Amino acid sequence: MKEKNNRRAFMAQLGLSTIPFVFPKIEKNAIAFEDELPANGTEAQSMINFIYDGLELSPDAYLQKLKEISGSQPIQPDFYGSGGVTKLLEEKFAKLTGKEKAIYLPTGTMANQLALKLLNQHNTKVIVPENSHVYRDEADAAQSVHGKRLIPVGIGKPYYNLADMEEAIRYLDENEVFKSGLGTVLIESPVRRANGAFVPMETVREISKYCKEHHYKMHLDGARIHIASAFSGVSISEYASYFDTVYISLYKYLNAGGGAMLCGDAEIIDQVGHQIKIFGGTVYQSWFNTAMANHYLDGIDDRWKQVVGISKSMVADLNQIKGVTLTAIPNGSNIFLMKLSNDIDLKKLANYLYKEHQIMLGRATKEGIVKFAFNDSLLTRAYPQVIEAWKKGIEQARNS
Amino acid sequence: MKEKNNRRAFMAQLGLSTIPFVFPKIEKNAIAFEDELPANGTEAQSMINFIYDGLELSPDAYLQKLKEISGSQPIQPDFYGSGGVTKLLEEKFAKLTGKEKAIYLPTGTMANQLALKLLNQHNTKVIVPENSHVYRDEADAAQSVHGKRLIPVGIGKPYYNLADMEEAIRYLDENEVFKSGLGTVLIESPVRRANGAFVPMETVREISKYCKEHHYKMHLDGARIHIASAFSGVSISEYASYFDTVYISLYKYLNAGGGAMLCGDAEIIDQVGHQIKIFGGTVYQSWFNTAMANHYLDGIDDRWKQVVGISKSMVADLNQIKGVTLTAIPNGSNIFLMKLSNDIDLKKLANYLYKEHQIMLGRATKEGIVKFAFNDSLLTRAYPQVIEAWKKGIEQARNS
Amino acid sequence: MKEKNNRRAFMAQLGLSTIPFVFPKIEKNAIAFEDELPANGTEAQSMINFIYDGLELSPDAYLQKLKEISGSQPIQPDFYGSGGVTKLLEEKFAKLTGKEKAIYLPTGTMANQLALKLLNQHNTKVIVPENSHVYRDEADAAQSVHGKRLIPVGIGKPYYNLADMEEAIRYLDENEVFKSGLGTVLIESPVRRANGAFVPMETVREISKYCKEHHYKMHLDGARIHIASAFSGVSISEYASYFDTVYISLYKYLNAGGGAMLCGDAEIIDQVGHQIKIFGGTVYQSWFNTAMANHYLDGIDDRWKQVVGISKSMVADLNQIKGVTLTAIPNGSNIFLMKLSNDIDLKKLANYLYKEHQIMLGRATKEGIVKFAFNDSLLTRAYPQVIEAWKKGIEQARNS
Amino acid sequence: MKEKNNRRAFMAQLGLSTIPFVFPKIEKNAIAFEDELPANGTEAQSMINFIYDGLELSPDAYLQKLKEISGSQPIQPDFYGSGGVTKLLEEKFAKLTGKEKAIYLPTGTMANQLALKLLNQHNTKVIVPENSHVYRDEADAAQSVHGKRLIPVGIGKPYYNLADMEEAIRYLDENEVFKSGLGTVLIESPVRRANGAFVPMETVREISKYCKEHHYKMHLDGARIHIASAFSGVSISEYASYFDTVYISLYKYLNAGGGAMLCGDAEIIDQVGHQIKIFGGTVYQSWFNTAMANHYLDGIDDRWKQVVGISKSMVADLNQIKGVTLTAIPNGSNIFLMKLSNDIDLKKLANYLYKEHQIMLGRATKEGIVKFAFNDSLLTRAYPQVIEAWKKGIEQARNS
Repeated sequence: MKEKNNRRAFMAQLGLSTIPFVFPKIEKNAIAFEDELPANGTEAQSMINFIYDGLELSPDAYLQKLKEISGSQPIQPDFYGSGGVTKLLEEKFAKLTGKEKAIYLPTGTMANQLALKLLNQHNTKVIVPENSHVYRDEADAAQSVHGKRLIPVGIGKPYYNLADMEEAIRYLDENEVFKSGLGTVLIESPVRRANGAFVPMETVREISKYCKEHHYKMHLDGARIHIASAFSGVSISEYASYFDTVYISLYKYLNAGGGAMLCGDAEIIDQVGHQIKIFGGTVYQSWFNTAMANHYLDGIDDRWKQVVGISKSMVADLNQIKGVTLTAIPNGSNIFLMKLSNDIDLKKLANYLYKEHQIMLGRATKEGIVKFAFNDSLLTRAYPQVIEAWKKGIEQARNS
Repeated sequence: MKEKNNRRAFMAQLGLSTIPFVFPKIEKNAIAFEDELPANGTEAQSMINFIYDGLELSPDAYLQKLKEISGSQPIQPDFYGSGGVTKLLEEKFAKLTGKEKAIYLPTGTMANQLALKLLNQHNTKVIVPENSHVYRDEADAAQSVHGKRLIPVGIGKPYYNLADMEEAIRYLDENEVFKSGLGTVLIESPVRRANGAFVPMETVREISKYCKEHHYKMHLDGARIHIASAFSGVSISEYASYFDTVYISLYKYLNAGGGAMLCGDAEIIDQVGHQIKIFGGTVYQSWFNTAMANHYLDGIDDRWKQVVGISKSMVADLNQIKGVTLTAIPNGSNIFLMKLSNDIDLKKLANYLYKEHQIMLGRATKEGIVKFAFNDSLLTRAYPQVIEAWKKGIEQARNS
Repeated sequence: MKEKNNRRAFMAQLGLSTIPFVFPKIEKNAIAFEDELPANGTEAQSMINFIYDGLELSPDAYLQKLKEISGSQPIQPDFYGSGGVTKLLEEKFAKLTGKEKAIYLPTGTMANQLALKLLNQHNTKVIVPENSHVYRDEADAAQSVHGKRLIPVGIGKPYYNLADMEEAIRYLDENEVFKSGLGTVLIESPVRRANGAFVPMETVREISKYCKEHHYKMHLDGARIHIASAFSGVSISEYASYFDTVYISLYKYLNAGGGAMLCGDAEIIDQVGHQIKIFGGTVYQSWFNTAMANHYLDGIDDRWKQVVGISKSMVADLNQIKGVTLTAIPNGSNIFLMKLSNDIDLKKLANYLYKEHQIMLGRATKEGIVKFAFNDSLLTRAYPQVIEAWKKGIEQARNS
Repeated sequence: MKEKNNRRAFMAQLGLSTIPFVFPKIEKNAIAFEDELPANGTEAQSMINFIYDGLELSPDAYLQKLKEISGSQPIQPDFYGSGGVTKLLEEKFAKLTGKEKAIYLPTGTMANQLALKLLNQHNTKVIVPENSHVYRDEADAAQSVHGKRLIPVGIGKPYYNLADMEEAIRYLDENEVFKSGLGTVLIESPVRRANGAFVPMETVREISKYCKEHHYKMHLDGARIHIASAFSGVSISEYASYFDTVYISLYKYLNAGGGAMLCGDAEIIDQVGHQIKIFGGTVYQSWFNTAMANHYLDGIDDRWKQVVGISKSMVADLNQIKGVTLTAIPNGSNIFLMKLSNDIDLKKLANYLYKEHQIMLGRATKEGIVKFAFNDSLLTRAYPQVIEAWKKGIEQARNS
């Protein structure tokens, strides 16, 4: 029971959209693998997954990749967040987002929290999406560590729009006497808890216009912004232009083992280093993460153009198969909802794909829906091979 | 001017006992190397240094080492601080320190700060050594983030003793009306700002006895405790037994790229994970650090026994050379103070040792003293070769 | 415009259930009186009001009353919250609430905030009524000063019940991964923003049972608990027995110029003095407030029994008058909703009552409802005189 | 034992320069009077004391005085710190100190703490005198509530000078790597823990010049600034002109029952109201304090000119008496050190003066020194009567 809860809590922490069929077994803090199956990527980078935010490399594969990277040009180390490949990556992120500066932080939680702290100044209130990482997955850090009051907006919706926000502000204004100050408005896009839906450009524009008029600062939790950009066609820098600060994860679509980037005006970003220090985030060396992210950042637009192209073909092709339905999400990015007819056995399919083709699938929700995520592991194999494997798999899994 | 200050600040942050002759040049946040000289360890692990806390591996050497480690037994990954080799290392540290539990944190600052926060509870005051990392090198985190008042004791001394502490407590008691509470007493050992001197067992025992009687908690900043243990002969677990919590660095003598361990009773350590989360330290993966520390933890006692043995010989042998004096520090560990007679040119010596023998030396203070630190890089070469190199070097550097 | 807002904000801060017809005019921070009318009580204590929580004495009347009090037995001064009549009153409040101890604080906001701080310990979350003083009228003190996250429950209802609370807890449990801890549950009774409705004993009992089982602490914001007790018939000590801490105002129904009492176990209350000190609330002398509250606390039950009796008669008698309707509030205490038929001119009535009979009435809401509050100013005159004045007033105000 | 400590702690909290011979006995929080003796001022305002900061009125005398004040012009009430006599007094204090605005707060601790919070902004460090109220008597509020680090300067001296401060700043600069920022410099004048010595104008000027050049803000804890002004001849507004904010007590030399004023630029003072609210200091009514202070503020300069004049005569006259020595303090204000020769029995003298002449004296320190404080209670009687009483008293107390 306790163990099951630990497992559930742990998987929830991983923040996966879906839960893989083949997955580490958790005992207290330990991870031991179910069955004899290796983790993704143990044998180099040859595994395809429709689950994770990226390649999800095993330690061996990770080290192999870093060796290759350093082979072509030696990785320059950083020290306490300064210099080397970390500095190089900061400069690239500044350019990518069109901001003056970027700074490396060990976690996205720290990036979000420090952005809110610095933007909000003496104000207490921050508007956040009710389903956001900041509101639900950062353990009340904003409140308990930084003395902020988060105002959740958009309950039951993938994202809030201007009218929702105005209504929330009006309610506060009418019902609370002492004005302790709203300083910042946060948007998360794409939204993990809404299957990767992204907030449309038009909605961002309207909210941004309102915020400028009312002197509210804006922060983007763009942990996975690369996929929003790939699927929406809006560049990261255009999207970012509506925000004062932008956080992007290094381990979501850049395959690093951890780390985050916070981008913004020099006035804000120059204050962040001291904050990282006092909150205990000034790690000795981080080149393990920044060298990997730096590698995968190069050419990411092209790679994702390919992924988007393949995903379109694949959704169409899979929908041709009897009993298989893939549905897009409104304003969706890389996640589709897959439903199989009753005569197809998902477990059989998943095991076949895994064992015979090194393709990983996620489990179904209790409603029988599998969240089907496209990522760049698809690029490690020719598409015809992939679709062929699926066709065979479904035949195998179809109950006669 | 600004650049020089940055350089000075940066080197100070590195917390080195001395400043290497061959050292990265700092431009703003960047690091570019002076001269054409490579960083330590660029060519595998063959460099000997008398400067750093350990091997100070280059990225290439680091990756090579991890590949070797994973080659003999695949490194098990951790996720958000749980499981894999990180869990394994936590268990080893609990055993090493004789405590119920240990937990991995990304930085020593976070380890120290969270220990003080949890031990001190509702109390405001913490007694710290005036020359400690917590007092001088953690950017007032205790005060600004955690609302603590640090009471510095032992000004101008390598460490404070019981009488110093009692005097400080008495002064507070007599001169302040409102008792806002002293909760915790911190000892740092060995003391970086006192050339690695360690606090003698007897002093620790007396302070510990007093603290138990007065219900004060005790925390050990034992970032470099391994060398104190090696040179004093007192085991880490015996030393740790006098403290409620003990922090040990993973990148000082265990050669990891970062990370810290905090060890203590389950009652305390079980609270730390939540604290790490809210302060933004729950990094996605940390096996890069824990796998390395785990490797170097095995057999550390034997290796350091060798280092201590060689250092004794080497101090004796160097002192035989005319014009060379190495002086031990009272209660010292691995650092000795080297003075050369006026007819020996230190710069020439350092350059010769570096270029001909891949041996790194530090610069002299303005008083002409070189802090001479022994570490396990010594073990990468046979001692006769090393002392021979020195003898030749000094001959070369002697002005005729 | 700005001035109007100031006025509106100021009146909102006063927290009156209704707004008196005759009221101080606000200019920036100043108060100057509208018309030539004196404030209530300027001529001794002869004014009756159906607006305030009590007598709302003018400075002259207040001084006169304290002189009388001190005449019969000299008021003993307190110093920095200790001793004298303040200590005496603390002892009476401990007895009144059936708690081990009580402590004087300068404001109700401080009483509520310190109770939550101490009860909640390391937990972040506190459940509060959405319409409560703590949630809406304390300027986000809980969040910005004390690092708490307030979870509002019972939106759109006078008070929440057990099911509402359980639903809120379940939602948190299912939708948030990291448990940062719910520590305390707050009930406000009677509820100022619900026209003085009180939370029924049965609801308190159910919530209390649940909280005990789940180890949540409970705090009662009972600023106006005396009227809940008078109208519900449940003693203060019985009501208080379900809570760990209870706050009661000294200037609501005890006619002091300010001040609050916090009652609870010695374990909690003994910690409060230090907290008051560090938050800057240790006022030099407070006997002005405590001597007055001490005076009005004696015999309060009897006086309120009379007020309840007269209010019943008066509601019945007024409802007999054509065009006058007084409606009780479900679980209501001393506030009734008065509606006049269109042919009765409220302004005329109010002016007549004020000028001829020194009776103060409040203004109507935009829906035409006057909040009609009974208090012990009624006891300063014989009831037949009062009802006669009303009858005459309504005749005067009836449009022919 | 415990009781004795309570008594000692209580008297220390009162912050008296000396301890009266006739003094309330403390039992836990209670105060019961030793012997049959009444507190000062019980019979109107006829008591002279050489102990307190002012008249130290009894409740009866206080009420009598307020009645007189309100008799000549009705006291206008304030509500939640706004309007009435409180606003009037704020305007007078702004004028008195030459600042744009002043605001009433319930305590000096709150005034000091909020000034430091607002002036210091994001900086951690505040320089304070080691013997100051902020450092020693505010229960670590700056550290525990406001996250500040107080840097004590001038240990063992009545006040620090520019060189002391520069030395402290240099030490920090050289010995601490991370600059977490010094924002504010605090001066207390006159200094209670230095027998009322004031910081000379020249010292203030030098420190102020340095602070302006280095962009540090300055705060004056001028709780007792009126006596510094009276004895130094420097006007309050001139003294205040060197500071960004100035706190002055209402119960030290203005005879109120409590309260403080904080004066400064509108930019700062306009932020204070919200801060008072969130820290729980927005008391319902404060006219009891502000009306009294308002009364005694008028004509204070003249009254103190008289006190200074009388004190000069009295010191000279007492020094004429054989066996009596009164010594001035360097840069002293109203406190002198009295020493009696061995043949004069202080206890006899004090009892005689008290019983026969209603003159209160303080006890001697263990070194046999009585701190002898002049205040405006002297003005309630003709000087020849006072000196005559002393002469007789000393004759009575002289051992034959």
